Amino acid sequence: MTKHAIDRLQLRINEVGNPACLGLDPHVVTVPDFLFEEGKVKYDNLSNSLEYALFEFGRRLIDATADLLPAVKLQLAFYEMYGVAGMKALERTMLHAREKGMLVIADAKRGDIGSTCEAYAQAFLAETRVGDHSFRAFPADIMTVQPYTGWDGVKPFLDTAVENDAGLFLLCRTSNPSASDLQGLKLADGRTVMEVLADLITQWGANSLSEEYNLSALGAVVAATYPEEARNLRSLMPQTFFLVPGYGAQGAGPDDAVAGFRADGSGAIVSASRSMATAYKKFAYPIVDFDLAARAEVLEMKEKLNLALQHRAI
Amino acid sequence: MTKHAIDRLQLRINEVGNPACLGLDPHVVTVPDFLFEEGKVKYDNLSNSLEYALFEFGRRLIDATADLLPAVKLQLAFYEMYGVAGMKALERTMLHAREKGMLVIADAKRGDIGSTCEAYAQAFLAETRVGDHSFRAFPADIMTVQPYTGWDGVKPFLDTAVENDAGLFLLCRTSNPSASDLQGLKLADGRTVMEVLADLITQWGANSLSEEYNLSALGAVVAATYPEEARNLRSLMPQTFFLVPGYGAQGAGPDDAVAGFRADGSGAIVSASRSMATAYKKFAYPIVDFDLAARAEVLEMKEKLNLALQHRAI
Repeated sequence: MTKHAIDRLQLRINEVGNPACLGLDPHVVTVPDFLFEEGKVKYDNLSNSLEYALFEFGRRLIDATADLLPAVKLQLAFYEMYGVAGMKALERTMLHAREKGMLVIADAKRGDIGSTCEAYAQAFLAETRVGDHSFRAFPADIMTVQPYTGWDGVKPFLDTAVENDAGLFLLCRTSNPSASDLQGLKLADGRTVMEVLADLITQWGANSLSEEYNLSALGAVVAATYPEEARNLRSLMPQTFFLVPGYGAQGAGPDDAVAGFRADGSGAIVSASRSMATAYKKFAYPIVDFDLAARAEVLEMKEKLNLALQHRAI
Repeated sequence: MTKHAIDRLQLRINEVGNPACLGLDPHVVTVPDFLFEEGKVKYDNLSNSLEYALFEFGRRLIDATADLLPAVKLQLAFYEMYGVAGMKALERTMLHAREKGMLVIADAKRGDIGSTCEAYAQAFLAETRVGDHSFRAFPADIMTVQPYTGWDGVKPFLDTAVENDAGLFLLCRTSNPSASDLQGLKLADGRTVMEVLADLITQWGANSLSEEYNLSALGAVVAATYPEEARNLRSLMPQTFFLVPGYGAQGAGPDDAVAGFRADGSGAIVSASRSMATAYKKFAYPIVDFDLAARAEVLEMKEKLNLALQHRAI
């Protein structure tokens, strides 16, 4: 029996009474223009002004919602696309979220083999050691991981997670329309590829079950956009925590989003990105108050998810 | 008919007569200690001295081999694990390799859905635009991509690649022992998962065939460690360029590495990382000449691969 970040995540969800997660996707169209303008006024070079805008986007959303939410999920692609300036903003945003008491999920979807996976796990979940020095590169608590390379590609991540009180979400059922191209392939034994993976996730995580909530350190990404499949995958992975994407802008509603929760209402967290960052449009707030609008959206999402959990038929 | 980076890669291979690729994996155990020491002498902070050592590792290997090799492959994990300092070294190493005339392969193994894939593709293969400014974040010519999310997760990468004279390698058959956990699953229709993916890669890439070498912009990762499967996958993907990992330190020899080449000896490149960076041990060079030892290793690898190509039974 161990303790790990997935267990801490469930604890924080229970404390705030809200199984929702702030998604940060700082695409140029999502980050309010005025933040780029502020950056230009403050700094006379593109790199510093970009870093300012990207960091402020996350900082303001975090500050406005940290007391209501257990975790923040940072989409790495939308930091990497800005180069070194983006990676500086990523590091600072992660540190800021931790200071505010949120668990940090690196939505990195990294995957490789052997020692390369160790390096990725170190980048996000553990200390990097160089000679007598050690430091955290991009300090997250949990990261998302790709399954295509099989156990060799998962074990180094899982070992690092267990050693460092961290956690993982392995892609199982993604939220996109063509997810079935590979995930839905029907095998000779009657299972689909994602069902095989679900069985493997249960098996691979079995040695990392937590005492408090009976959850494995190896969670799974199971989308809100396929609720029937989420129910099926839950039955195959009773001790697996689900990260649930696809809510809001991608089309899934609260009833869809809670389909994969455990019978007692635990075991999953629903992530929303665009619907948070652009809530100022829905609530007709001035754009400078995009963070306050996100707070209103978080409160509404909390109510909707809890209602859906109360009224669902198990 | 189009031109793209995969086509340019084949051209460069023909020019230098060497289907080998320098892999850069700057793990702490691979980067010679004296480079970290030099960094400490030059800079009084960890971040700058790290950046120095990581950049110098790549720069010296590139300078010693650029005239003999068509391309360099940078393993992102071993830069990300050093945080922002690592990402600075990554950007500078990519720029340096381009100046030396090498094609740059970002071994990023990124994968996601929709606009997130666009962001990753922008990060490595295209310009990032912010207001009136545009810049290259991490300037590569080709990147490796994960297949698990299906067509939605490949199309944004492929569109960006075709628009920007770039290219892709989609993971198909990886080099690790447990690769078969998912890739080898037997389907109801008799094919394996990797065979389905091979058929999809052929189909998805069909609109990007180049005039000169009849190659698609969508290449595939097909490991040297499973030569029988490489031959089979070649028959399913005649117009697909293969990136071949697993040579040297991972156990595959030259005959294994060329198994997936086309009958005319084109259509693939063999990557080697550890065997290049640590060649000073094999050739008993002083460690300060690790780059000259890598040059000797490149010459030996070139001869071995060309011999294997000449003598193989098709």
